[in-house]
Amino acid sequence: MSDGHFKKIALIGVGLIGSSISHAARRGGLVDSITGHARTAETRDTAVRLGLIDTAHATAAEAVQDADLIILCVPVGACAKVAEEIAPYLKQGSIVTDVGSVKESVVNDVAPHIPSGVHFIPGHPIAGTENSGPEAGFAELFDNRWCILTPLDNGDAAATAKLKAFWQALGSDVDVMTPQHHDMVLATVSHLPHLIAFNIVNSARHLEQVTDREVIKYSAGGFRDFTRIAASDPVMWRDVFLNNKEAVLEMLGRFTEDLTDLQRAIRFGDGDKLERLFTEARGVRQGIVESGQDTAAPDFGRHAGANEPASE
Amino acid sequence: MSDGHFKKIALIGVGLIGSSISHAARRGGLVDSITGHARTAETRDTAVRLGLIDTAHATAAEAVQDADLIILCVPVGACAKVAEEIAPYLKQGSIVTDVGSVKESVVNDVAPHIPSGVHFIPGHPIAGTENSGPEAGFAELFDNRWCILTPLDNGDAAATAKLKAFWQALGSDVDVMTPQHHDMVLATVSHLPHLIAFNIVNSARHLEQVTDREVIKYSAGGFRDFTRIAASDPVMWRDVFLNNKEAVLEMLGRFTEDLTDLQRAIRFGDGDKLERLFTEARGVRQGIVESGQDTAAPDFGRHAGANEPASE
Repeated sequence: MSDGHFKKIALIGVGLIGSSISHAARRGGLVDSITGHARTAETRDTAVRLGLIDTAHATAAEAVQDADLIILCVPVGACAKVAEEIAPYLKQGSIVTDVGSVKESVVNDVAPHIPSGVHFIPGHPIAGTENSGPEAGFAELFDNRWCILTPLDNGDAAATAKLKAFWQALGSDVDVMTPQHHDMVLATVSHLPHLIAFNIVNSARHLEQVTDREVIKYSAGGFRDFTRIAASDPVMWRDVFLNNKEAVLEMLGRFTEDLTDLQRAIRFGDGDKLERLFTEARGVRQGIVESGQDTAAPDFGRHAGANEPASE
Repeated sequence: MSDGHFKKIALIGVGLIGSSISHAARRGGLVDSITGHARTAETRDTAVRLGLIDTAHATAAEAVQDADLIILCVPVGACAKVAEEIAPYLKQGSIVTDVGSVKESVVNDVAPHIPSGVHFIPGHPIAGTENSGPEAGFAELFDNRWCILTPLDNGDAAATAKLKAFWQALGSDVDVMTPQHHDMVLATVSHLPHLIAFNIVNSARHLEQVTDREVIKYSAGGFRDFTRIAASDPVMWRDVFLNNKEAVLEMLGRFTEDLTDLQRAIRFGDGDKLERLFTEARGVRQGIVESGQDTAAPDFGRHAGANEPASE
């Protein structure tokens, strides 16, 4: 039975996720030491100054030496290069994992580089905020959120159990599934919503009849909600869409079909259909609140003094 | 110079907006008494019990008698019938306004019924939560939010000034524009975002590969944000889309064009274009936060203990 403790962790990348792993691991007393690599000297200095990492390294290869757990916290498009670079320096028996929002491409990119005797277990915590960088992290990010692991078919069960215990100690619930299923699920719950948010924000910016200033002033009408996830890191999201193309295009096709159906109902004034579809959509919110995946407070609790939801 | 005070207000409808007007008007000492009408006896009883209205009336006609300010807080599709019903009972010199999310259709539906000597000034507070009903209201709902008035061409300037002062005393900033411009702006900042949210939630419900339970569990990936506004009142939104058809279809056409462009960039792996579009979208959030229309706290402040945004 593993307690999720590792002597030495290496964080390759100390952005929002990497820095939050550090905070949560320190909070739980899960590590003796944390080494880290970031591309820029500025980020490395910040990470040391904030106590996120004990030692900073200019290359990923240096950072992973002697580490028991190596976590790739870089955009998914950067994983192949990092894996190739660190491969010769990985300790026998160590575990390599990642936090990328796409899993099949990461398996294809990383697995071939991992030496025999090192355990590669892809992972993805379903948690985040719209902020980026080493100062954006906090210890509570993973509390009551799900982390999905997609172990390889020939993977070592004990190593997977150890990584699972680590994520649980960080505050997460852990699920295991195939990379293919992960990518389809995430296309639905994350990638398509982000794409739609990016798109609605950009559409609003290019109107002739409505000014940018008006869009901002009246954004409490609903628009502002979309701008939060549209403020997420552009490079991370570029890589997600480049690497989960098929699943995203599949979900996008379904979304567009359904939207065309709604558009037609509006054009022909089919009020019964609109009311029925809107009523069906309403129910999903309740399940999310009841499962603890969102706040029950109205308007995400943004209103000071807001009442609790009506109980009738 | 008006102070926004009215002796007697009549609320026709005491849902989220009607009940919030009552709370905010009582908070500001803006009224001597409030009468009200709701369709069901249950809502009328609740409204009296909560102190939202001093007297409850089974018909709108009774509720408006002797009132100085009559506020229609019903779905926009119900305004015509209410206006016709109350017209014979309106006091000379009184002001009739509404809170509907569409203005041109309300002008067309209501104005013909309003007798000479009564001032009809359409209005729309850009504020709300996903909750409905008399228990959902609270006094702070309109604080620092915009209320748009769309006075008629031949309207009385003093009456408009008085209604403006009332909304300011409720906590709002007030803008004046034409009904047509209002409807185009709101199609952008509110109607299209709600339609997209309803649609993405329903699309996710009908997948074969991803279960409803998975959608809920992993909704922190972004999906949950859309479920909040998709939980808004179905009848209110049905009426919005039936009554702002042209502007919504125009905005929807633009949204779909832009989405098709993004889809093509994904299909052909155009990473530069994706990164550029995502970077552009990011900037809008900052304007909204700086203007006070949304919280600066990461993730809408849903994470206890979350840091402030990185200041680098």
